[in-house]
This record gives sequence, C-alpha cells and structure tokens, in this order.
Amino acid sequence: MRQRITELLVAKAEEQVVTVAGWIRTRRDTGDFSFLEVNDGSTLINMQVIADKSLGNYEEEVKKLSTGCSVMVEGVLKESPAKGQSVEVHASSVTVVGWADPETYPLQKKRHSLEFLREISHLRPRTNAISAVARVRSRLSYAVHNFFQEKGFTQVHTPIITTSDCEGAGEMFQVAATGKDGHFFGAPAGLTVSGQLQAEVYATALGDVYTFGPTFRAENSNTSRHLAEFWMIEPEMAFCDLQGDMEVAEEMLKYVLADVLEHCVTDMNLFDKFISKGIIERLQSVLAHDFARVTYTEAVDQLLASGQKFDFAVKWGIDLQSEHERYLTEQVYKRPLIVTDYPAAIKPFYMRMNEDGKTVAAMDILVPGIGELVGGSQREERYDLLAERMEAAGLDLEEYGWYLDLRKYGTVPHAGFGLGFERLVQFVTGMANIREVIPFPRTPGFAPC
Amino acid sequence: MRQRITELLVAKAEEQVVTVAGWIRTRRDTGDFSFLEVNDGSTLINMQVIADKSLGNYEEEVKKLSTGCSVMVEGVLKESPAKGQSVEVHASSVTVVGWADPETYPLQKKRHSLEFLREISHLRPRTNAISAVARVRSRLSYAVHNFFQEKGFTQVHTPIITTSDCEGAGEMFQVAATGKDGHFFGAPAGLTVSGQLQAEVYATALGDVYTFGPTFRAENSNTSRHLAEFWMIEPEMAFCDLQGDMEVAEEMLKYVLADVLEHCVTDMNLFDKFISKGIIERLQSVLAHDFARVTYTEAVDQLLASGQKFDFAVKWGIDLQSEHERYLTEQVYKRPLIVTDYPAAIKPFYMRMNEDGKTVAAMDILVPGIGELVGGSQREERYDLLAERMEAAGLDLEEYGWYLDLRKYGTVPHAGFGLGFERLVQFVTGMANIREVIPFPRTPGFAPC
Repeated sequence: MRQRITELLVAKAEEQVVTVAGWIRTRRDTGDFSFLEVNDGSTLINMQVIADKSLGNYEEEVKKLSTGCSVMVEGVLKESPAKGQSVEVHASSVTVVGWADPETYPLQKKRHSLEFLREISHLRPRTNAISAVARVRSRLSYAVHNFFQEKGFTQVHTPIITTSDCEGAGEMFQVAATGKDGHFFGAPAGLTVSGQLQAEVYATALGDVYTFGPTFRAENSNTSRHLAEFWMIEPEMAFCDLQGDMEVAEEMLKYVLADVLEHCVTDMNLFDKFISKGIIERLQSVLAHDFARVTYTEAVDQLLASGQKFDFAVKWGIDLQSEHERYLTEQVYKRPLIVTDYPAAIKPFYMRMNEDGKTVAAMDILVPGIGELVGGSQREERYDLLAERMEAAGLDLEEYGWYLDLRKYGTVPHAGFGLGFERLVQFVTGMANIREVIPFPRTPGFAPC
Repeated sequence: MRQRITELLVAKAEEQVVTVAGWIRTRRDTGDFSFLEVNDGSTLINMQVIADKSLGNYEEEVKKLSTGCSVMVEGVLKESPAKGQSVEVHASSVTVVGWADPETYPLQKKRHSLEFLREISHLRPRTNAISAVARVRSRLSYAVHNFFQEKGFTQVHTPIITTSDCEGAGEMFQVAATGKDGHFFGAPAGLTVSGQLQAEVYATALGDVYTFGPTFRAENSNTSRHLAEFWMIEPEMAFCDLQGDMEVAEEMLKYVLADVLEHCVTDMNLFDKFISKGIIERLQSVLAHDFARVTYTEAVDQLLASGQKFDFAVKWGIDLQSEHERYLTEQVYKRPLIVTDYPAAIKPFYMRMNEDGKTVAAMDILVPGIGELVGGSQREERYDLLAERMEAAGLDLEEYGWYLDLRKYGTVPHAGFGLGFERLVQFVTGMANIREVIPFPRTPGFAPC
C-alpha cells in the first residue's frame, strides 16, 4: 500500500519504511546518486527521493527517468537536511511503472501558459496550478455541503432535463434522443438553467433546502466569464425574507472562505505567489468586514455622482453591467457589496414586488475582481401578483400550474439565492479565466473529452 | 425567527417561548380548544399545538384550518402529557399564512398511493413517505462526501455535456442549441452516461478522486428500475487494483449505511413500519457481515447447479440478468455479494484483461432486493492492449487520443467503480419503485416541472 505524500509530510520524524507512488516532476543527477522529485497529486509538495547507484536499475532506468514517468518508490523516510522541505525518502527500490517519452510528452519542466494547458485539458491536472485548483475546488464544494448540512438544510437534486425554462429566456439547450419519433419526454425538453423553481417545491415542504448541480446556457459568449456548463448552489428557505436571505448568503461565503484558507494552505500560497498576488490577504479582509449594503437606486446615484466614464451609460432602470458592478465593489466600497431592490422590469417574474410597485426584493452580491457572485431574491408568494407577472412575462399559466400551486396551497414567504460555483472558485484562487477553474470547460466550439 | 421542530424535540424540558412555522397536517377540535398537528419538514414528527378559544381568531380562522394550510405559531413549549410525544406548544397566537382549500387540495388526511403521488410530484414532498425519502437521500449524499473527503479523495466535477460515449453504446441523449447553425460545440454532443473516463484523467494526476453527478440514458425502458436521468458516484483510484477497489466499495457502503441508521432514526422507522418491514434489521445485518465474493465462473456454476428455473437461461458467457443477480444475493448468499472476473465479451473496452485472456478484472456488487448496486473494474492501463480492445469495439482511436494518452505518458494501474445513487436510496429506504427516490423522475414520456 502506498502512502500519500500529504500524510508523510506531517508524519513523525522517526525513520520509517514507506512506499510512495506518483509521477516524476524532475530528476537531478549528482555523481553517485539522483534526486527525484515525485508528486502524487495529494499535495503540491513533491517528495524528494534520493536514489543512489547501488539500486539495481540505477543506470538502466533511474537515470532515464523524465518528467511525467510514473514510479513506485520504497525506502526510508528521513528528516531532510535540504532547505524548504521537511522529509525525504532514501530509496531502497525505484520501480518504473510507466514511461513518458520526453520527445513527445507535452508537459515539460518549464512553465506552460494557461492558454496552452487549456488545449490539453486531459493532462493539465498534472501541473501545479491546475492540480491546486482541483484540490481547492473540491474543498470548496465540501465546505458548501458542510455549511448547509450543519445548518440543517436538506440537499435536493433538482432535475437537469426539464420542460420549464426558469429565467423565461430562450438560452436553453435542447435535449433529444436520436432515432426516437416525436419527443422522448412527450414534450420539448431542455437542460436546466436553474434548479430554483423545483427547489421551491421542496422548500415549501421541507423548510430549508439547497441544490448543488450543473446548469447550462446555450449562449454564444466566448469570454473569460462564461461557460455553457457550470455548477450552481441554490439554497431556498421557507418563512424567510430578503433580510434572512442576505444573512445566510454572507454567512455562507465567509464560512467557505475561512474553511479553504484553513485547509488549503499550500495551494493558496501558490495562488498568492504566482496567480494573484495578495489574494490571501484580500480574502482575509473579506472575512474581517461586514458586507456593504446599498439599494439599486442608491447605487445608481453613486455611479452617476462618481464622474467615472463607463462604456454603458448609467441611468435608473438599466441592468448593471460588469463594469458598474466592479466599480462599485472595487472602487467605491472596496469590499463585497450587496445591492438590493432592483427595478422589477429587469428581473425575473418570480421576484417579490416591493411596496413601491416598481422594485422587487432582489439582492446581488458583488465582489472585487469578479462582479456578481450571488444573485437572490425573496420570491413572490402572493398568487394573484405572481400570476399577473407570469402573464406579463408571456408564460403559460397552465404549464406552470405546479409552480402556482405552491402559492395556492399553504403559501409561505420564502427566499433563496444562486451562487455560481466557478465564480466562487475564481474568487478564491484569483484565476482570471473561468476556463481554468472547471475540469473540462464547455464553451462555443469546444467540448473535447 | 422560527425554530425547527427537529430542534425543539430535543430542547430542554423547561418551558420556553417558541415560534413554530409550518403546515397543518390535521386539526382536531375538542370543546374549548383545538389540537393542531404542525409539520415543518425538518422531521417526520409533527408538533402538537394547543390553540384555545381565547385566541382572537379562534372561531374565524383556527377552526377553519385544514390540511396543507401554512401557519406561524407563537407559544410556550411544554412537556406533553400525551402518549408518543415529548413536547407540545400552547399557542399564544396562531397566524394563518396561507390557506389550502380542502375542496381542491389534492393531499388530504387519508393515505395516498405512491402512484397517485407521482402524478403530483410538486406536492408529494409534503407527505410523510416522500419527505422521509428526501431527508434520507440528503443524508446519504452527505455521508458519501464525508466518506471520500475523510479518506483524502478529491471531488471532480466531470462534464455533463460530452463528445465521448463512455460505454461505447448508443443510448445517449443528443444536445443542441436551437437556431444555431451546425454544432454548438463544433461536434455532435450528448449527455454523459458516465464520468469515468474523465475521472481517470484526474485520478492519473491527483491519485484518488470521486465524482458525484447526474448521468443519463436515452433508453425506452418504462420499468420500476430505470430512469432517464439519475445520479452516480464514481471513485477512481491510481495505483489501485481490483482488490483495493472492492475494499473501498464495501467500506463505503457500510459507512453510509451506518451513518444513515445513526442520523435518520425517525425516517428509517417509517420505512421499517410502512414501506419495507424489517429493513433496519436487514441493513444492520449487512453491516455485521463481510460481503461474499465469488467469480463469475463460480456464480454461473452455482446458478446451473441450483435447479432454479430462470426466464433467461444460464450459461457461461451470458450477462447476468436481474433474476440471476437477485437469486444469488437473496437465495444463495443472503447478503451482499461481489461477483468478479466477468467474460471480456460482455464488458466495456476499458476493463483490464485478466491473464486467462478471456475474463476481465471487473466486479459487480449485488444486494438483496435490488440486484446490481455497484459496478467497477480495474482499468486497462497497458497501451497496446487498450488500443486493441478499443479498435475491436469500433472506437476511433484518434478521437479517444486523450484517453490513450493517459497510458502513453506515465501510465499507472488504476481502478474505480460506479454506484447508482438512486439504487442506494432504494436499498436503504426499501422503496420498490425508483421513481419514489428521486425528487423529479425523468422517464419516457414523463418530465413535468
């Protein structure tokens, strides 16, 4: 049985016989022995293996090891005299499991650009940066589950294939089965753009629920911010208003940030050093302060008063663009900012109408470097008002009868939000392009593997 | 702020003022006061609320409350003198939040058939059985994450939309964007049938990984065992053989069973009483024994020797049918059974060829009441043997170049398995039809909401 390097690094300093299995990052020869840097993916940190010429296969094999070769090493774990590492393995045997021809293996010792790595998405997790993203992403995902489960929320798996179009927009992928006559599901079906409507079904039965699943947009956007397939976290809470919604969202974000700073120290140091200098301090600062809060109307006034020139002109009623959002959170507030009470006309039909009759109980959380990270609202729980807005949005009330039934029978105030998981991973890692933070990005013209 | 009933049930017996919010299950009047059974979805157990005629809205509202109405109750929590409940609330106010017209509300006090409830999937989580399934499903999901995260596995989100067809079969849903010329992704794309191939990419970089995501089959099967959309858990482990694979699978199943028996006592009692008598004892028995192990060849001999009559005749080389699997695990072994080393001809191309040249290092875990719960294998890590089998399976080696690269560069022995999550929920709850254990089942001709 192999032992993981991440566990050996914190092992007792006493000498012990260990087995390490992984991939060669580098080999350095020095007279009578070689230093092998072995990585097993459990941590960014390589195990230094000292292989000397007494090994039976030293000349024949060990001295031919190159980046990417897989090896199984047995030896003694010892304190390392070298700077920057705690332990090393003095090999009693080095078994070559698989070779990697240095003439053709695309990953070499030199640093590769993230753009180049995107073209070889099946090999890029073997690099420091992308493996660090993978570990941080996994920890963030787990932290999200821990947060909601500890708070007594029930996870609900809302459907991926759906006959509803949550946003009332048309950017939906169509799903069909080859060779089937008519519709497989008896009606046109597509890939979900949000699990919210179905999460409402469960919130109005179980109280507090959350989803964590893939969502889709058939949008022809080839930008660093868009994916055709991405993961969303969507909590939905019965007997909850916009105030409670904002509190849970802020608490959740702080919980997962603190968690990843605690559990992913090595990986976070890499991002801090090579990807986005100072990111650890910026995340710590997020933890240390309350999120700012401002209404949409106040925010528009602030943008107008700023004298700042924007590509997209500001006036009450516009949908805030990324440039506006980032200006507010980065320049005006310099911390996460919750903007509330947007004009009803630019928000979906299900958001609860405010007393003023023109804004809705919506909230977006904007964060520096990203813009919108969370979008949420209190939902319209009043049957007549909801039906009216659905009709205005051109929805077929009969088709959405199930959604209206939630208001017809034992309706309750409820609220929820959506967190784009990849945006969260970007926020934490400082990765500028969203394609770096999902294992296999799907974008227009691009879905290899 | 409301308090959850599940928390109040374990609250100190001291009298305290509480707020309970939920839905009326029943109302019973008795002269000067009414008993309201209120459920908030946090537990199966209703809170008994005692509302007396001194309440201002007693005659006007409280006495009109019916099943499904939503209420907010303030009052004093007291020890209950009634049998079978620990506490009750003496209401100082009962606010009706939403009515549910008893003339039209489909859920009434009487017991509804599971078939009927399937037709109203947006209301069925308001019933005891389906809400219990939802809570158990959520706990099982969390237990799966806990198991793998505690063992140091990294969760990987493999793609939903893919241009690969893992099983080499054609039962794939096609994905397209309306109004787009040609292919949105530049090539025909479909919904994944398994995340395994992509999980192998990450296992051969990070070591131990797992996926937990939706998978799809465009199969025209209208049975109690099939869904067009279901969730799979797929761990994949580097430097692992079939032996290690079986050990992790057995350990995982026992971990999640023990977890749910510990954390979902009330819900499990419901299943034990009303859905599948004795299920708790059967699950405890699974925990208490090692899984049996048998090779496919031995299993076929046992089936032949049994004298049992099967619809599908047994001979070496057949794919075991559900009737065979259930006979083995229910009649012969009477416990979970791992069948290994299946004929290569009936298994996918990626399974590792055994020394005999005719069987592969595959394993299926069969459990009583379900049949196959887990299917796994050691993967073929030898480039030439894999390429040969891919060609025999009619796969385009160039298209799968990324998959072959994992063997070309630093190949390692590795293994993994797939666990159908809904089958696991069925196994734990005893639900006979798979449509009861997923919130919104998708089957041929059926995808409402």
